[in-house]
Amino acid sequence: MVKILVCYYSRSGTTERMAREIVRGMEDSGLEGEIDIRRVEDTDMDSLPGYDAIVLGSPTYYGLPSGKMKLFLDESVIHHGKLDGKVGGAFASSANPAGGNETTVIAILEALLIHGMVVKGDSKGDHYGPVVIGKPDDGELERCRVYGKRMMKFTKQLRENFSRR
Amino acid sequence: MVKILVCYYSRSGTTERMAREIVRGMEDSGLEGEIDIRRVEDTDMDSLPGYDAIVLGSPTYYGLPSGKMKLFLDESVIHHGKLDGKVGGAFASSANPAGGNETTVIAILEALLIHGMVVKGDSKGDHYGPVVIGKPDDGELERCRVYGKRMMKFTKQLRENFSRR
Amino acid sequence: MVKILVCYYSRSGTTERMAREIVRGMEDSGLEGEIDIRRVEDTDMDSLPGYDAIVLGSPTYYGLPSGKMKLFLDESVIHHGKLDGKVGGAFASSANPAGGNETTVIAILEALLIHGMVVKGDSKGDHYGPVVIGKPDDGELERCRVYGKRMMKFTKQLRENFSRR
Amino acid sequence: MVKILVCYYSRSGTTERMAREIVRGMEDSGLEGEIDIRRVEDTDMDSLPGYDAIVLGSPTYYGLPSGKMKLFLDESVIHHGKLDGKVGGAFASSANPAGGNETTVIAILEALLIHGMVVKGDSKGDHYGPVVIGKPDDGELERCRVYGKRMMKFTKQLRENFSRR
Repeated sequence: MVKILVCYYSRSGTTERMAREIVRGMEDSGLEGEIDIRRVEDTDMDSLPGYDAIVLGSPTYYGLPSGKMKLFLDESVIHHGKLDGKVGGAFASSANPAGGNETTVIAILEALLIHGMVVKGDSKGDHYGPVVIGKPDDGELERCRVYGKRMMKFTKQLRENFSRR
Repeated sequence: MVKILVCYYSRSGTTERMAREIVRGMEDSGLEGEIDIRRVEDTDMDSLPGYDAIVLGSPTYYGLPSGKMKLFLDESVIHHGKLDGKVGGAFASSANPAGGNETTVIAILEALLIHGMVVKGDSKGDHYGPVVIGKPDDGELERCRVYGKRMMKFTKQLRENFSRR
Repeated sequence: MVKILVCYYSRSGTTERMAREIVRGMEDSGLEGEIDIRRVEDTDMDSLPGYDAIVLGSPTYYGLPSGKMKLFLDESVIHHGKLDGKVGGAFASSANPAGGNETTVIAILEALLIHGMVVKGDSKGDHYGPVVIGKPDDGELERCRVYGKRMMKFTKQLRENFSRR
Repeated sequence: MVKILVCYYSRSGTTERMAREIVRGMEDSGLEGEIDIRRVEDTDMDSLPGYDAIVLGSPTYYGLPSGKMKLFLDESVIHHGKLDGKVGGAFASSANPAGGNETTVIAILEALLIHGMVVKGDSKGDHYGPVVIGKPDDGELERCRVYGKRMMKFTKQLRENFSRR
């Protein structure tokens, strides 16, 4: 059984909504797993090494994840090396199309790669991770659920493999 | 007379050292100006619109500026629009060559561009902004001073122009 | 009088359309200038140092400018140093919102910064440069024209300044 | 048995040298596999879907992979979707420390993620992929071999898993 953390920062509620849809997609995947959904300020840093996948979401503030999410990433250095080989994912909301949502998702992925984590792109849809622009529409929320399902499946594949060794 | 802020976050002292060398370069430029050097935690947010140029420096934490610097950028939203047309600059330190220093400098520049600021690259040396890898060596500190001189000159050119209108 | 090059790669016609709207915005700015609009394959490399501003546009292929545009940037190395201090700009089209348009614009800007060029962000609208997603809509084309006007004005300010020295 | 392609563009020979060291690391991993090393201009595009991992290397030209490598990525669109779930990797050489090597590696990784490929960071050493600055030194070449070994192992783990399904 895989264990996944979906951790987000949200003020307006958009990123929180995305987090919930991603979790829903994970639950609807038909695969067994324990999924924790946490605000970044309520996330127990000590819990990180216990997860098989960590998915982080943030609104876009000046083309990057929020300062609070960045502080969380900074503090995660106490586990540096222990997250190596785990699955990492990212999602972001932004006010405008060319407003920094892609750079926010990629910034999070860069941080997770430095942790040695494994990132999978998507040849369809939001390639780097789901993005919502403005108020979330049905297509965007659907892409969040598809992403959740996909992350669940990928994490399971990767973990089964590692655990066999 | 131009007014420039060099604002940095530093824990080990490397980024602070870079800030000082940049300021030294500005002072040695032979051009008149008022240069403020401030730790990010001691920077008065209300002072930002009073500067002609804002140069931000940070160590590289997970391929991005430190959370403290990012919080500062987030909070600068209260001045959104008022920094448009001012000069922006960035510098970064990192532990290793491929450890995220370029992505840190570019992340800061992206934030400053979203503020509508003006960024100048350099066809020689550290193209996006000065970088120190590990303990600063003489060449790196010299590049910080050259950068300071260059920023001073560029800010003066840009400001004189805007002020004539 | 400023001299500006708008150079683009286009296959479907979307990026070409953007280029035309940008040029229209420049022409409607009320400022005098000579504006050349060229397909990248028809651009005379030797002409580059004669421009005060160079604005490059490309569709998004795998999150980056097209190979043809990249070859053009590679070949521009023969002028390395001669474009220092000139204005640089970028625009991009993409099929989807999170499909790589921001990373394409930023990739072009990074190349222009390495040339030592001057880049100005926008505190409103498409911060790094105009973007069209899918078939261009009215708002997107309007943002292209606003960008053209803004680039014209900025280039004029910067050039007047440099030429006085 | 895994099948891996190491494909590179090289003019000065540095990136080619890196490719060879990466292959040596793969061969020294003690794991069985078929490893093809190809110049990008000699790579049969039709062969791509036959590999379990594709590792691309390029010198840094204006902060990005070379135009020839970018053309190769553009043309790989004929296999779009077929590379989903395969392992992707990147390496780069550059003249200077802050000269664009990180952005080149990340640009390649972004393209591979858009193909839906799987990218693994490294919590030690060159986090995103190996980098050589200037003339390769012993430490850099060693990091190339370590990377090769690590990619071989990771590809094997991922593939075994997929093939069981």
